[in-house]
Amino acid sequence: MGSVIDSSTSLLAAQTHDIVRFAMGAPAAEVIPTDEFRRLAGEVLDDSSFTYGATEGEPGLLETIIELSAQTGRPTRPERIVVTSGGMQGLDIAFKLFVDPGDLVVVESPTYTNGSGTALSYGAEILEIPMDDDGMDIEALEAQVGELGRTPRLIYTIPNFQNPSGTTLSLERRKRLLELAHEWGSVILDDDPYGELRFAGQEVPSFAELSPEDPLVLSVRTFSKVLAPGLRVGWVDADPRLRDLVIAAKQAMDTCTNVPNQHVVERFIRQGGYQEHLEGLRTEYRRRKEAMDASIARHLGNRVVTTDPQGGFFLWVTLQGEDARISTSRLFEIALAEGVAFIPGPALSPSGRFQDAFRLCFASSTPERTEEGLQRLARALDIARAELGG
Amino acid sequence: MGSVIDSSTSLLAAQTHDIVRFAMGAPAAEVIPTDEFRRLAGEVLDDSSFTYGATEGEPGLLETIIELSAQTGRPTRPERIVVTSGGMQGLDIAFKLFVDPGDLVVVESPTYTNGSGTALSYGAEILEIPMDDDGMDIEALEAQVGELGRTPRLIYTIPNFQNPSGTTLSLERRKRLLELAHEWGSVILDDDPYGELRFAGQEVPSFAELSPEDPLVLSVRTFSKVLAPGLRVGWVDADPRLRDLVIAAKQAMDTCTNVPNQHVVERFIRQGGYQEHLEGLRTEYRRRKEAMDASIARHLGNRVVTTDPQGGFFLWVTLQGEDARISTSRLFEIALAEGVAFIPGPALSPSGRFQDAFRLCFASSTPERTEEGLQRLARALDIARAELGG
Repeated sequence: MGSVIDSSTSLLAAQTHDIVRFAMGAPAAEVIPTDEFRRLAGEVLDDSSFTYGATEGEPGLLETIIELSAQTGRPTRPERIVVTSGGMQGLDIAFKLFVDPGDLVVVESPTYTNGSGTALSYGAEILEIPMDDDGMDIEALEAQVGELGRTPRLIYTIPNFQNPSGTTLSLERRKRLLELAHEWGSVILDDDPYGELRFAGQEVPSFAELSPEDPLVLSVRTFSKVLAPGLRVGWVDADPRLRDLVIAAKQAMDTCTNVPNQHVVERFIRQGGYQEHLEGLRTEYRRRKEAMDASIARHLGNRVVTTDPQGGFFLWVTLQGEDARISTSRLFEIALAEGVAFIPGPALSPSGRFQDAFRLCFASSTPERTEEGLQRLARALDIARAELGG
Repeated sequence: MGSVIDSSTSLLAAQTHDIVRFAMGAPAAEVIPTDEFRRLAGEVLDDSSFTYGATEGEPGLLETIIELSAQTGRPTRPERIVVTSGGMQGLDIAFKLFVDPGDLVVVESPTYTNGSGTALSYGAEILEIPMDDDGMDIEALEAQVGELGRTPRLIYTIPNFQNPSGTTLSLERRKRLLELAHEWGSVILDDDPYGELRFAGQEVPSFAELSPEDPLVLSVRTFSKVLAPGLRVGWVDADPRLRDLVIAAKQAMDTCTNVPNQHVVERFIRQGGYQEHLEGLRTEYRRRKEAMDASIARHLGNRVVTTDPQGGFFLWVTLQGEDARISTSRLFEIALAEGVAFIPGPALSPSGRFQDAFRLCFASSTPERTEEGLQRLARALDIARAELGG
């Protein structure tokens, strides 16, 4: 599990001083408006912030989400929205509603294993579909489902700047995936934490835009990556026919999402400057991604091939040539001792694939730290290679 | 579902002015230290409040919970504690870990139906056990399990000032329940949101005190009733052998509990005055409970029998004589029109028992409002009685 490794990394980091944490999946500390949140909390919290909130979310925040969605050109409606305790709870709700023991669930390979882990917790059987630079390989999906002779109950995808690969599902493939979902009666679980963080290339229409009012599309959104993960505020955008089910599932999980942070998020967005905040994130993350590309080229050169994300937090590194014999799980141990952390490939695949690959997060480190981290990673790679006797 | 009715009540209340809300399960608005929380939020929140927290909870809050438990004479240990997003998530974790489809789950009758609803969502078969003034009838439990010829996987109990009955499980019965749990290999899910709110009588030892280091006892605790429900901060106290399972389950639900409120709760407790805060709650809730007793005696007299809680929020009202023919579901509709709300009995039993009973919350209304509410309730009862042609 990605986050399990993240937290063990944190423990180790307490012992190993000055670690470069490419393993984190959190926004850069520098871009979280901490002072502003603290100021707003001291200002907006009132009696209504501390009693039980409505399970579907605070009315003001629901309105704000509707207004935001209109501003970004992907309008939605109040009857489609339920506030959740971060994107993770959106995934929990979707898997809980749709997955019964033995149901087939399709995931991208590699994938966000906290998501696939939640599917497993409801008894899913997981089918991993390979990816390329255009996201999940839909032809491979069709072929594998055909071979199995069973259709999936749910297809879990992170269509934009996927975690962990950084790739984006192409328009053609989104359309084809919708066709297959309708043919099979499969739910598309569209998990999109990074969609607002595009810093290059052209936006691709969402599943909801391509297939409006579709009860087979359930979209999970969150403020974790664009505001702050500690808030635990996200939302589900789904067909109104699903809303009562979503609310009932959430009620049995945590009654309501914590109210003070809903009020702080609402005020942060309403006071203006939110689009400028997003623009600032895009500029900074593009700078950091380009810096990581440059550092990788300098220190790893043609020993690796990487993906080229147009947004988000992550890129995916695959070892080449003789280095491909190195286990990145072993490389992880060596790298930690050298003072740099990443997520090894096998932790990002339910069946432990990608022994020769790993995920790097460019979002959480400054260019200077990234340069230092890649130097350390190159040393770790040399040590791992020497261990192989290559 | 209790809370479903609560929220529909809120909607109606927006139309019906000046409703007396005996249906709420929330603390009195007057005793929530809103100004203090707002001040602390403006003071203590820093960078660490907005990034991902550890799934098991913020280290400072974990320490604070340990210190509190020592102060109250029921010491626990860090290896036993996981912070949760309110008590509801503690229940979700317990049912998710222990209940597979078809498993038998014992609940008190009446019970907190959001809890039994979560058990049902994991495929539990529910066995309802009657209660009397000493809590769940353990002889009846033994007899019913014997008749069924199947032992329960989990026994769900609210041992102190039970929601909705207000009764407390006696010491003898706690001991006997522990014996049966061990004989059957059943988990005791000890849900205790109200335990710190005893305002009369003698404290009864907890399951953890009666059976230390017992992997069959899982205790769910929360700050919702003693501080504020909107915070969504609670904890699970369980055998250390269960801790990794509890953490893994929580990680698949919401990654971590919202961090700012963990920091605010920690500071609120550490700054001193917490025991005085609890003492203030007990004094106020005793005053409100005694006021409700007096108003019931004045306006309902011998038309009802009520329980006599020694703490918590609720008392349970059973119609007597000819009034027992009234359906409290119908009475609820009439009462709403008269401007008073409660929870009808059938909403508090998975099989819809207790047509002749209802739950009142004495905690959320001042004595003056309670007097007004009972007058309205007496009018509603007269109307319902007239409808019967009695």
